Amino acid sequence: MANSPNCDLKSLSPLQLFERVTEQGEKVRALKAGKAPKDEIDAAVRMLLSLKLSYKTTTGQDYQAGLPPKDLVLINNGTTKEEDEDLVDPWNVQTSNAKGVDYDKLIVRFGSSKIDTDLINRIERATGQKPHHFLRRGIFFSHRDMDQVLDAYENKKPFYLYTGRGPSSQAMHVGHLIPFLFTKWLQEVFDVPLVIQLTDDEKYLWKDMTIEKAYEYARENAKDIIACGFDVNKTFIFSDLDYLGTSAGFYKNIVKVQKHVTFNQVKGIFGFTDSDCIGKISFPAIQAAPSFSSSFPQIFNGKENIQCLIPCAIDQDPYFRMTRDVAPRIGQPKPALLHSVFFPALQGAQTKMSASDPNSSIFLTDTPKQIKTKINKHAFSGGRDTIEEHRKYGGNCDVDVSFMYLTFFLEDDDRLEQLKQAYTSGELLTGELKKVLIETMQPLVAAHQERRKQVTDEIVKQFMTPRKLAFEF
Amino acid sequence: MANSPNCDLKSLSPLQLFERVTEQGEKVRALKAGKAPKDEIDAAVRMLLSLKLSYKTTTGQDYQAGLPPKDLVLINNGTTKEEDEDLVDPWNVQTSNAKGVDYDKLIVRFGSSKIDTDLINRIERATGQKPHHFLRRGIFFSHRDMDQVLDAYENKKPFYLYTGRGPSSQAMHVGHLIPFLFTKWLQEVFDVPLVIQLTDDEKYLWKDMTIEKAYEYARENAKDIIACGFDVNKTFIFSDLDYLGTSAGFYKNIVKVQKHVTFNQVKGIFGFTDSDCIGKISFPAIQAAPSFSSSFPQIFNGKENIQCLIPCAIDQDPYFRMTRDVAPRIGQPKPALLHSVFFPALQGAQTKMSASDPNSSIFLTDTPKQIKTKINKHAFSGGRDTIEEHRKYGGNCDVDVSFMYLTFFLEDDDRLEQLKQAYTSGELLTGELKKVLIETMQPLVAAHQERRKQVTDEIVKQFMTPRKLAFEF
Repeated sequence: MANSPNCDLKSLSPLQLFERVTEQGEKVRALKAGKAPKDEIDAAVRMLLSLKLSYKTTTGQDYQAGLPPKDLVLINNGTTKEEDEDLVDPWNVQTSNAKGVDYDKLIVRFGSSKIDTDLINRIERATGQKPHHFLRRGIFFSHRDMDQVLDAYENKKPFYLYTGRGPSSQAMHVGHLIPFLFTKWLQEVFDVPLVIQLTDDEKYLWKDMTIEKAYEYARENAKDIIACGFDVNKTFIFSDLDYLGTSAGFYKNIVKVQKHVTFNQVKGIFGFTDSDCIGKISFPAIQAAPSFSSSFPQIFNGKENIQCLIPCAIDQDPYFRMTRDVAPRIGQPKPALLHSVFFPALQGAQTKMSASDPNSSIFLTDTPKQIKTKINKHAFSGGRDTIEEHRKYGGNCDVDVSFMYLTFFLEDDDRLEQLKQAYTSGELLTGELKKVLIETMQPLVAAHQERRKQVTDEIVKQFMTPRKLAFEF
Repeated sequence: MANSPNCDLKSLSPLQLFERVTEQGEKVRALKAGKAPKDEIDAAVRMLLSLKLSYKTTTGQDYQAGLPPKDLVLINNGTTKEEDEDLVDPWNVQTSNAKGVDYDKLIVRFGSSKIDTDLINRIERATGQKPHHFLRRGIFFSHRDMDQVLDAYENKKPFYLYTGRGPSSQAMHVGHLIPFLFTKWLQEVFDVPLVIQLTDDEKYLWKDMTIEKAYEYARENAKDIIACGFDVNKTFIFSDLDYLGTSAGFYKNIVKVQKHVTFNQVKGIFGFTDSDCIGKISFPAIQAAPSFSSSFPQIFNGKENIQCLIPCAIDQDPYFRMTRDVAPRIGQPKPALLHSVFFPALQGAQTKMSASDPNSSIFLTDTPKQIKTKINKHAFSGGRDTIEEHRKYGGNCDVDVSFMYLTFFLEDDDRLEQLKQAYTSGELLTGELKKVLIETMQPLVAAHQERRKQVTDEIVKQFMTPRKLAFEF
């Protein structure tokens, strides 16, 4: 029975099964084209049918050539996206809904789990801390295996945090801070090590940019990240261009991932085409590898099985779905994930912001005056056309960008609720709501700028030097 | 005129032009599928026709979808190979001719140049040394830009040597020594630095082998390479798995190459398919990068424009054709090449040997007795069926593997010529010729084993430590 296709197939992941069907299909075609003996072709066809059956049993879907199993497909090239579905991948976020992306639908499509009240309560019990307002307000809304992280944590098993940024320009906006602010909170309440990847190699590959420029942006962005207040004794920030040439452990994990992911798979997950450069095609492995603690022997004392938790915006999930598919096959634990919603552009929640459009958000370099002008001029309002109508019918917080920004940055729950009620009832006018936002953002950005000034090149160097952190493993 | 396709196309390489045509074709199809306005489609079609014209002007060939320009195609997947052509790529060498591959045809197909008497004489003049018998006997038979290397050398401009090995097993055979013996001679007569790449990552990606095993083989193979007699002060040997995590310069060059090569290109050059893992697809960049001196800042003091000369077997040429296509686009000089023929299997010159078949060649670990038995039992003979016929008609040196091996390993030209005449005339019998080979190989292998015993782990470590070599740059 050793050759029966059903024998060893049970251990295969849906993606591996997909691969096996695809390969067998190619074999059948090759045999037919080569006019192989009839019994040989028949045997290959039987094997193909049997593989297709296993695929259907495992995935609940019929095999379709070129279409990997659905829970692994990121609907990013339009071909498999349904008419009313949002477009979400690492390079595009589009929705036709003014409220923004439908995150409940996204959870179903991506196959992740909702962060519900139970989970939030459990985090509170485990850490003894009030959950961050990003959790309370559904800004981090989806997860993978967070319960397992908590199981381990409650049993005194260590884990570590991994997040990152693609340094596409010097300018970061307030939305870029979301994962870092939340990661900082996680690091504090769980007291765990943190690694932050700056994918300068990715930006070089994707953009019309020199390697030197990408590396420079990485270092500049590191300053803004450090200014969020990370503890240098517990945090390692690295540029891929730097660190890959410093850590054999990192490269080994990259090669391991690269051996276990085919072009068919990255085509399905990321929508790559034959015209894409081989750097893009193999890059997902570089974002995957920091999910494995052996990529950081200096931090984990060479330990290989430490659980990783990744806080990130949901558009980065495709990388980690791939990582989670590969992990067991290279003997590593799957990383857990916490997903955030997107930070809306000032013009409205239909799209993710662009760092290249200065009016699309509030930048960390903006002056108080620029902040005021931008909000007054560009923040999409859910208010009514005239004061009279507004007083009569009230504003719509669901589409009002000023109110959305306040849910991200105004920490006081009671105040936020008051504003919501007052705006919805028509008591509070758009200009008044904007004023609250201006008064919230101005000191916040100014304080960031003040902290960033303190971040010297020497401090950046400390954060970016591979070293032991203040933990024992 | 800025948008005229003919304007900026002149600076593009044939491969880049191929890419542009392919992309434009895809664009036209997308426009038609999307029912775009007629004038938009017409403009895209005009652009496509214009691009195809540029392609034909530049390459002398009609554009064919999926078939990159011919001088860049390695005929390795059978589909474009003509009936009587030999199959030669990094993973396969096949010919139906008992004399072995037709190298003159290969030169034409690969677009390289023959190493002729003029070039050999020039090497003799430049170095003041008698050319190595591998040159005199056509074992290194083809080159790219060797005259430019000599131009530079005569003008006191430095260059460096780069060769390598894929450590697929612990066992190396005498044929594996050919590039190293020749490289050692080149290093001595030109007095230049040498880098030797051990592609343990490649072997991990291609074979059913752990990373640890591949790395172990790399270190074991390094011992055999060192035993050829390389000067530790002038030679850097590196394992990819090691060195990639030690040198940011190396990784930067890899990413640069990966940005400038598409999947379409590696598909055309190496025959990769959608089912290949992304590690294989991006690997060619890792074999390309040591062609650029900035991959070795410790050796070249950060200098970026040092000419590289690569001695290798002709089956490795596809990697370096790709490298030469990319080099000018990333501001680097093209590496020059010297190509060797394949070392024949004992069973005959139709195929390249396999390290996994112990009877296919003489291994560096063979005892004198094993050598004797193998040659007597397995070396394909060009002699006649009976002694009487042999005496009457003579043997055929063109297909006799013992004689072929002697052309590689018997340095005495006069003796070799005598043997050839005696064998061809029928005076020398097959058994006698085999005896000469046995007596040549036994001391050669024994001496290698003796030198290899001297190669301690400490010496391996010295060779494999990134460091300054005994040259000033």
